[in-house]
Amino acid sequence: MSGTLLVVKIGGNVIDNPEACSRFLRAFAQLPSPKILVHGGGKVATQVAAKLQIETQMVDGRRITDRPMLNVVTMVYGGLVNKNLVAQLQAQQCNAIGLTGADGGIIRSVKRPVKEIDYGFVGDIEAVNTAQVEALLQSGLVPIIAPLTYSTEGVLLNTNADTMASAMAVGMAERYEVNLVYCFEKKGVLSDPDDDNAVISSLNPDSYASYKAEGIINKGMIPKLDNAFKALREKVSRVTICHADDLAAATSGSAGTILSL
Amino acid sequence: MSGTLLVVKIGGNVIDNPEACSRFLRAFAQLPSPKILVHGGGKVATQVAAKLQIETQMVDGRRITDRPMLNVVTMVYGGLVNKNLVAQLQAQQCNAIGLTGADGGIIRSVKRPVKEIDYGFVGDIEAVNTAQVEALLQSGLVPIIAPLTYSTEGVLLNTNADTMASAMAVGMAERYEVNLVYCFEKKGVLSDPDDDNAVISSLNPDSYASYKAEGIINKGMIPKLDNAFKALREKVSRVTICHADDLAAATSGSAGTILSL
Repeated sequence: MSGTLLVVKIGGNVIDNPEACSRFLRAFAQLPSPKILVHGGGKVATQVAAKLQIETQMVDGRRITDRPMLNVVTMVYGGLVNKNLVAQLQAQQCNAIGLTGADGGIIRSVKRPVKEIDYGFVGDIEAVNTAQVEALLQSGLVPIIAPLTYSTEGVLLNTNADTMASAMAVGMAERYEVNLVYCFEKKGVLSDPDDDNAVISSLNPDSYASYKAEGIINKGMIPKLDNAFKALREKVSRVTICHADDLAAATSGSAGTILSL
Repeated sequence: MSGTLLVVKIGGNVIDNPEACSRFLRAFAQLPSPKILVHGGGKVATQVAAKLQIETQMVDGRRITDRPMLNVVTMVYGGLVNKNLVAQLQAQQCNAIGLTGADGGIIRSVKRPVKEIDYGFVGDIEAVNTAQVEALLQSGLVPIIAPLTYSTEGVLLNTNADTMASAMAVGMAERYEVNLVYCFEKKGVLSDPDDDNAVISSLNPDSYASYKAEGIINKGMIPKLDNAFKALREKVSRVTICHADDLAAATSGSAGTILSL
């Protein structure tokens, strides 16, 4: 084991707000390395697609990615969002390097098979090149990862950012004690959707099942939590869900919702 | 010295043509490492800008880059073009990693001062982080560099790809014997613009001055050649200008126009 690695996911709602994003990046820059940031950017992609008169179609919160939409997400996730995050972090002495799954071959996927729905150019992750990621971390770099992967045929594939963060955390758990933190615009998993302070401070599979049965944990949160519990079962040491403003506190276990098995 | 490093620049006209680009990438993938590719993409940026109803303004072949245009070039150079090149190279077992100057802080610049013309968010290169680039090369990665740099304030800046290639070649000449190859859609510098086979096989500062005086070497070629001769004066070992289809031959000195002092 090479010590502790922090893997942080930052959501599109935070990235979309320049002040919130800037506060988050200042906090992220100050955390000890090694660390990895995985970002979303779906809202910006939808805006750019609209300006290009490309219609956004979502099924269960997932983007249908035909060829024109693949070009949009490649431009927005891999270019506009990723490179602006990198430039801002570099200005804060954080040696950021922006990557998609294709760069250094770090995350390879397969195009999702067509069943009831044809998601188009969407990737299901097959492999994380953990040796390559560790080499980058050991040379002092901070990977900033956009939600795009690639197939062995050389095609880019749109990939869910939450899933990329958990796949990266699980892969790197072979080599590090991994602390995975999902940051978004709420203070954690809430027991009352109308009360932003009603944070459930800890969740295990049993309490998660109860909250789901009672309908307290709702639809949008379920894939995120399923991903998170799966990461814990696959040897990630800690998973926290917290507000982007609470990143520093969450990394030390004093904010957000902490998941355990 | 760590041996020989190949730095290749590929122009926008080749990138714009899928078959020509694919032939070029196959040849590039097969060349021995260490190697670096610097790419353009201005034609694609102009097309995307037009679709977004953003007007492209050029002065002496240089793009005026206001904030909306900076977003376009960040999307197109850093995302669409760069990541597709990387994915295609990865499919050919070339361990490509796509970078802007901001990534790993490899090429820092300053926003060009406003004189007669306000070029906007355009960068004049200040420093190449040659230690970082060497570390990437030594770990077996092949940097694919988009024509964007960044300032110490964390702002991305549009930067001429020919200039980036020569700055990278000059910087790395501290550490390697550098072979710089500019690939484009002609077989080299031509003595007759209407005869694609009239390649000037070698040029030195005296013959270059004569061709310029006679008007044989024309306006578009002059900044490229000025850059190239400057690179030779600053310790780059060899500079060649050739057709993208002749990359392999040009690296061994048997195609294109070879420049010498």
